[in-house]
Amino acid sequence: MDLLERLGLGGRRVLILHHDDLGLTHAQNAAYQALGFPTGSVMVPGAWASGVRGKDLGVHLVLTSEWPAPRMRPLTGGESLRDEAGYFPSSLEVLWRRARSEEVERELRAQIEAARRLFSPTHLDTHQGAVLRPDLAKVYLRLAREYRLPALVPESLEDLGVPPAFLPDLLRLMEEAPFPRVRFLDPYGLPPEGRLGFYLDLSRLGPGLYYLVHHSALPTPEGRALPDWPTREADYFALSHPEVRRVLAEFHPLTWRQVKEAL
Amino acid sequence: MDLLERLGLGGRRVLILHHDDLGLTHAQNAAYQALGFPTGSVMVPGAWASGVRGKDLGVHLVLTSEWPAPRMRPLTGGESLRDEAGYFPSSLEVLWRRARSEEVERELRAQIEAARRLFSPTHLDTHQGAVLRPDLAKVYLRLAREYRLPALVPESLEDLGVPPAFLPDLLRLMEEAPFPRVRFLDPYGLPPEGRLGFYLDLSRLGPGLYYLVHHSALPTPEGRALPDWPTREADYFALSHPEVRRVLAEFHPLTWRQVKEAL
Repeated sequence: MDLLERLGLGGRRVLILHHDDLGLTHAQNAAYQALGFPTGSVMVPGAWASGVRGKDLGVHLVLTSEWPAPRMRPLTGGESLRDEAGYFPSSLEVLWRRARSEEVERELRAQIEAARRLFSPTHLDTHQGAVLRPDLAKVYLRLAREYRLPALVPESLEDLGVPPAFLPDLLRLMEEAPFPRVRFLDPYGLPPEGRLGFYLDLSRLGPGLYYLVHHSALPTPEGRALPDWPTREADYFALSHPEVRRVLAEFHPLTWRQVKEAL
Repeated sequence: MDLLERLGLGGRRVLILHHDDLGLTHAQNAAYQALGFPTGSVMVPGAWASGVRGKDLGVHLVLTSEWPAPRMRPLTGGESLRDEAGYFPSSLEVLWRRARSEEVERELRAQIEAARRLFSPTHLDTHQGAVLRPDLAKVYLRLAREYRLPALVPESLEDLGVPPAFLPDLLRLMEEAPFPRVRFLDPYGLPPEGRLGFYLDLSRLGPGLYYLVHHSALPTPEGRALPDWPTREADYFALSHPEVRRVLAEFHPLTWRQVKEAL
């Protein structure tokens, strides 16, 4: 039975509003506190992971560290997960070429275990889609079941930049996964100057279970040290805007905690 | 022969002005850039270690992580160096009770090796004096010799809060160490409101090799998330002050690179 039906939300417009990349910078954590939305996920290898407090926090599983600084290191010793300075690989290409599945499993397990010492996780998702390589997706979904944490699974893989060779296996795994399929929305790659319009246009969406990812960060010197700060600040300003808040209020808000309890 | 004599600086007032705790926060790195003094040391397990660029940078060896956030994890797997969430112990007491010497050696070696991938280190020192336990001091001094990096060794252990039981062994190790003994000055624990006076009073010092540690950080939201931000900002403002700069100019400036080359 469909999750929304089971929750008595069939035919409604339902929204999980998700704050990505918590725990890496103070600016991102501070935006989470300032906006007041409950749902997000934490990069456990991030320096500020221990500083996140919230009601609906998941584990943003990390296998890459893509900025010159700040950078993140694996919690475990797997040589296939680190560059010569000991950091996670700086790109998905390098990760997917080198990562050994058993080292990934050990690392993701360590991140989940460490997260459980810091807060009570409600779900799993993954930074940059690092687990889209099919054997890693299998590990991701197995750990989600083992730890009884729902995993983010999109309804479609279109426009997510997934290498075509991964698609057949991935689609099969997604079909078999015991988690709700969500309509994935993410303005990250859109021009920052159109961000307000993106959020206001949500008003036109029809019924369904939407998963809207944002990367809000405060406009501070630390926040602006990330090369992609304009898109993060654009999310923050748009989600602080009263008109966007009014549009979001048209949706029934859903948390991962509610999803977890319904599964 | 005395280092200052060898450098032709006998009878002079010589100063190594040292910026501690680089690499942990953006605010600390940005203060290093803004002040323009060459010497400091980098916490390799810190998220921003890869973001420090400078002329005279050492390795600020880390074995503790004392703030609630940001926190740091060991680079190696030693169980005696981590708490239940995988972070370094939050106090020297816990570290010194639990740390196994061979796990410390592996960790410090990994930090030095990783530092060498990021920059060209000129010296070693240690966060919170974590290596003052005599068997760890032995490791520290051995690694310094092995990597040909001068290690910070103070002239006296008075007022450094060293447990009395450590003193006899430590003093012997310090006597034997092939590194210059410096007159250690650190206003960290002094009230921030008197910081300007502390720096201006340096003018009264007599001849000798002084090692002045500061913890300057920019006044930003991230910088102020550290519980001890007032003392960090006090250093930053004092060292930006023209009168303090005038006093510092009375000293002959020395870098660790010069010390390294003279040894």
